[in-house]
Amino acid sequence: MQFLSDNAAPVHPRVWDALRAADAADTPYDTDALSRALDERFSALFGRECAVLWAATGTASNCLALATLVEPHGGVVCHREAHIETDECGAPGFYLSGAKLLLAEGEGAKLSPETIGDVLAGITRGIHQVPAQAISLTQATEYGLVYRPDELVAIGALARAHGLGLHMDGARFANAAAFLGAAPAAVAGPVDVLSFGCIKNGGMDADAIVFFDPERAELARWRRKRAGHLQSKGRFLAAQIHALLDDDLWLANARAANAAAQAIGEGAGERLMHPVEANEVFVWLSAEERAALRAQGFAFYDWDARSARLVASWNTPEADARALGRALAAL
Amino acid sequence: MQFLSDNAAPVHPRVWDALRAADAADTPYDTDALSRALDERFSALFGRECAVLWAATGTASNCLALATLVEPHGGVVCHREAHIETDECGAPGFYLSGAKLLLAEGEGAKLSPETIGDVLAGITRGIHQVPAQAISLTQATEYGLVYRPDELVAIGALARAHGLGLHMDGARFANAAAFLGAAPAAVAGPVDVLSFGCIKNGGMDADAIVFFDPERAELARWRRKRAGHLQSKGRFLAAQIHALLDDDLWLANARAANAAAQAIGEGAGERLMHPVEANEVFVWLSAEERAALRAQGFAFYDWDARSARLVASWNTPEADARALGRALAAL
Amino acid sequence: MQFLSDNAAPVHPRVWDALRAADAADTPYDTDALSRALDERFSALFGRECAVLWAATGTASNCLALATLVEPHGGVVCHREAHIETDECGAPGFYLSGAKLLLAEGEGAKLSPETIGDVLAGITRGIHQVPAQAISLTQATEYGLVYRPDELVAIGALARAHGLGLHMDGARFANAAAFLGAAPAAVAGPVDVLSFGCIKNGGMDADAIVFFDPERAELARWRRKRAGHLQSKGRFLAAQIHALLDDDLWLANARAANAAAQAIGEGAGERLMHPVEANEVFVWLSAEERAALRAQGFAFYDWDARSARLVASWNTPEADARALGRALAAL
Amino acid sequence: MQFLSDNAAPVHPRVWDALRAADAADTPYDTDALSRALDERFSALFGRECAVLWAATGTASNCLALATLVEPHGGVVCHREAHIETDECGAPGFYLSGAKLLLAEGEGAKLSPETIGDVLAGITRGIHQVPAQAISLTQATEYGLVYRPDELVAIGALARAHGLGLHMDGARFANAAAFLGAAPAAVAGPVDVLSFGCIKNGGMDADAIVFFDPERAELARWRRKRAGHLQSKGRFLAAQIHALLDDDLWLANARAANAAAQAIGEGAGERLMHPVEANEVFVWLSAEERAALRAQGFAFYDWDARSARLVASWNTPEADARALGRALAAL
Repeated sequence: MQFLSDNAAPVHPRVWDALRAADAADTPYDTDALSRALDERFSALFGRECAVLWAATGTASNCLALATLVEPHGGVVCHREAHIETDECGAPGFYLSGAKLLLAEGEGAKLSPETIGDVLAGITRGIHQVPAQAISLTQATEYGLVYRPDELVAIGALARAHGLGLHMDGARFANAAAFLGAAPAAVAGPVDVLSFGCIKNGGMDADAIVFFDPERAELARWRRKRAGHLQSKGRFLAAQIHALLDDDLWLANARAANAAAQAIGEGAGERLMHPVEANEVFVWLSAEERAALRAQGFAFYDWDARSARLVASWNTPEADARALGRALAAL
Repeated sequence: MQFLSDNAAPVHPRVWDALRAADAADTPYDTDALSRALDERFSALFGRECAVLWAATGTASNCLALATLVEPHGGVVCHREAHIETDECGAPGFYLSGAKLLLAEGEGAKLSPETIGDVLAGITRGIHQVPAQAISLTQATEYGLVYRPDELVAIGALARAHGLGLHMDGARFANAAAFLGAAPAAVAGPVDVLSFGCIKNGGMDADAIVFFDPERAELARWRRKRAGHLQSKGRFLAAQIHALLDDDLWLANARAANAAAQAIGEGAGERLMHPVEANEVFVWLSAEERAALRAQGFAFYDWDARSARLVASWNTPEADARALGRALAAL
Repeated sequence: MQFLSDNAAPVHPRVWDALRAADAADTPYDTDALSRALDERFSALFGRECAVLWAATGTASNCLALATLVEPHGGVVCHREAHIETDECGAPGFYLSGAKLLLAEGEGAKLSPETIGDVLAGITRGIHQVPAQAISLTQATEYGLVYRPDELVAIGALARAHGLGLHMDGARFANAAAFLGAAPAAVAGPVDVLSFGCIKNGGMDADAIVFFDPERAELARWRRKRAGHLQSKGRFLAAQIHALLDDDLWLANARAANAAAQAIGEGAGERLMHPVEANEVFVWLSAEERAALRAQGFAFYDWDARSARLVASWNTPEADARALGRALAAL
Repeated sequence: MQFLSDNAAPVHPRVWDALRAADAADTPYDTDALSRALDERFSALFGRECAVLWAATGTASNCLALATLVEPHGGVVCHREAHIETDECGAPGFYLSGAKLLLAEGEGAKLSPETIGDVLAGITRGIHQVPAQAISLTQATEYGLVYRPDELVAIGALARAHGLGLHMDGARFANAAAFLGAAPAAVAGPVDVLSFGCIKNGGMDADAIVFFDPERAELARWRRKRAGHLQSKGRFLAAQIHALLDDDLWLANARAANAAAQAIGEGAGERLMHPVEANEVFVWLSAEERAALRAQGFAFYDWDARSARLVASWNTPEADARALGRALAAL
């Protein structure tokens, strides 16, 4: 029973169907009909004009997005446990020509106007310091917490007040949207660019970068090509994204994963390190307890020496999740 | 009838089968069984030890390869019509941290020890100039010409003599191999790193970067991650590559494309700008002639105001190729 | 008798005086009175508002200037023999985060709307190619030729028409101004940023970067700091520049150097490769002839196997220049 | 009475003499006799072979040094208050092509094997994280504390054990050496590259980068040119460094500054935030107390809302320092 990560889960059958349907040759790169239809598709989803590019990984999506917000001498305020800081091998430094991540605090990897403000307050010495030019949030956070719409509005107001761009790493945006039950526009809040994750949610290798300012998308097109991310058969990436949007498959998949996480979380009780809001469950577990669970057939990663991360996917069998919940309760 | 490019052709049915077979969740990134099997697979193919990484585009493959050969202050000798110079939006400058392409001449975009030597002879002023650190060849060239094994040996000797790394952009390596009918090792010659193209030859979005010095592959792993090219479901990329190697599908596909190009070339006669060796045919055609062909249902790109490029793919119907050959002869 | 280069000539006595006068401690970096006075000083010189930064080398000046005109994915049109292309070890690639130099032709390293247009005409494939974003001219050129005011106006019009920034490498701007006898504004023409050279003209280690759009200067301040070029005792750099502007010492020095070059050129007759306009003389000379001159005590660099470059400086003794002219005539 | 910083202090008379003596034209860049003599000079000083380059700022020195130790995907462990982290506007990100600073703790901005080890212990996830490749220490630290020889040996052992390069930012190396009274080799410890500061210690605009592995110096020569830091009249930078080494002027200057700091520190008593070891004194001072001191004619910078930094220079009058000490005692 698999709780290692959502990042290697199978591809959803409807995504497979869409991939096969896209096989017939079309014009190359992003000039095919499917790629060209993405702008309209997401504009409808978010109720405002947007321009959308596909990219093959979340890291590429995040970095291409940020490269439209930050100059080489600038900085991005993010949480010290943000994926861009801890898990991308310095990709932002590469894509942003040496720009810097400026690290903020916050419980559960969640930023707030206060913790962002603490970082900004330390930038006082003009050209001797890296100036903040953008903020990057993760929705849901690296600990599975979900920003509420009003929290995003408050952070957006701070960003505007300081002239900062606002980016959202939405590798698990669908899980956040499923949790909130709110309109996508409210789940994204007043961000300038959103990395809309599909890969962890039933896709194969396509995420969408949603630019709410279409001019930024034009810049990102050059950067994507230059980064070797403009695939010649781009129709296959676009097809995956369309398939997930069709009939709200993205939400259905996320709801399934979230429900499985809830089932796990219910058994975890006081072991929970954070409330379960999306599809990840972080639990305090000793080495012996982890070994006991693994002996029962549950596969998962240690988080650190005293804890574990249990991740549900769109295809996690409900029975498996319940079994894990029971096993946790029985420890 | 489609002769625009091989870069948007459909995916081969056996590649589709391999993709579906890889769906079952495996470990993420490049830790899955298929990705781990690539080294051995290519070591057998080339008859020497090599280490292999997948990447989603030829641009990424070329740049990740070159980044193991060149320092930020260095230069890469390539043809002035090389793809890395003319069609990658400066990707080498990005991946190599500002390193420079040093442009050489040569008929049909083909380098020789002489034309490479001309570039090297101009580098005499020490730290005031960018030092050459590598050579990059394209096999087959951007005009569809194929380096013969002895030509590669001669260029390799020059590279060794000057302490330069040697890279081969093999976006159409299969077509070159099919043309030569030689062992893959002879088609690659004494290169350090080979971008082994699959995408134009029946794949979906996976090329292989073949490092004949496994230590360079270790460096490229960091760079790939940092470039956002380490896909979490990497098994799907590896699966495509394996499918093309199985029973030499890569050669069969290339032979089919080459044969179609020959059929076109036979009709072209004196219009041929270059001998037809791989799957591309460059022909002198006036605007009126191009219009006449298009009126007959042939789709292709202009090359410049007086010429056109006609590209055959693994799936080009033989009848279409012959029809185009006849149409050219009849002009 | 020294005709090697103007780049290692002594510092002018009035520059020495200014350096000593600046010794008394002032506020650090560029907050001192001398540095702050540069904007006004150059605004008066050019008759329009400008903002000015010092930098310790011409390479740094050029690169900091260009970094305000070009994005990392963009390109700079320059002559294929421009200093930024041939003699700066790839510095533009470093400072511009991998941006590319796009090489144009032109007699005597001089660009024209036609040769620039040829480069622009080749950029037609959108995101697959590096887009031109700026033009860089050298005044006087690397062969000592001077752009006439109307030539600059024509290039400026082309730049505006294509939305390109315009930079001038004025390492020998003073020599061009002395030759033309025109107002500095006409010698610069409609450029956006000018590297105003002082080092070859009696300074020690300060050039001025003159931004005719002060907003660009603000950007350059960050970049200068980040490049390690914001000296803490910046007053010494500003002092040199002021000393050269005082009573038009910069023009007097350039006139002296130009006059010496004229004296050499007069003796060179048909050996001249280019008309002598500034302070450099390029002459056809066989190896034997070069040896003969050196045997007479003249020091200079070979240009290539058949020619030599003879450079006069602000302090070249008139007698030495005449002697060299006579020696050339006597060959 | 000036206690703002040592970074804008006047140039020492003997340095002026050396500058004037270097005026006669010599060969350009770093090919002059003075520049060429630096290797031998420092090899004698440190008792082991070294290769030395000049650079015009401490930022450039640090970055050129680090660029020989770290790859673009790598990281440098430094203190979170290190100058390279807080005061160089992201210069390391620029010079190291996006490499990352990995921040360690430590009282008084001083690293130890323990705090460095804490950073290293967090790097466990292979290619997903930036690997540490070097350590950078500041001697004396940003709070004026001096690493003892045995502390350096211990850190050096850690560096070797982890295969990390070791860099020392010696902007105030002279002050550390004067404090320790030890041989320069012991003050530097087992570092690979030392930024040997001269500018804050009586120089004008030259620091020395001392490579204890001469091969690294060869790499740094390219990088220096490429960064626009290879000055054409490099003899003036070399001259400053020689002047400071002559008759140990560098130590005499540092001793004077340190003695002044001691005089201040003696009056500060319990207000001292850190022991006074070099030429900087950090004191707890309320806004009212700072105002009172300024009213008495003492100029200095606030450190934060509750403290101030008082810096002595090579030319701080002893009477001024004593006056400040008395004023502090009298608060």
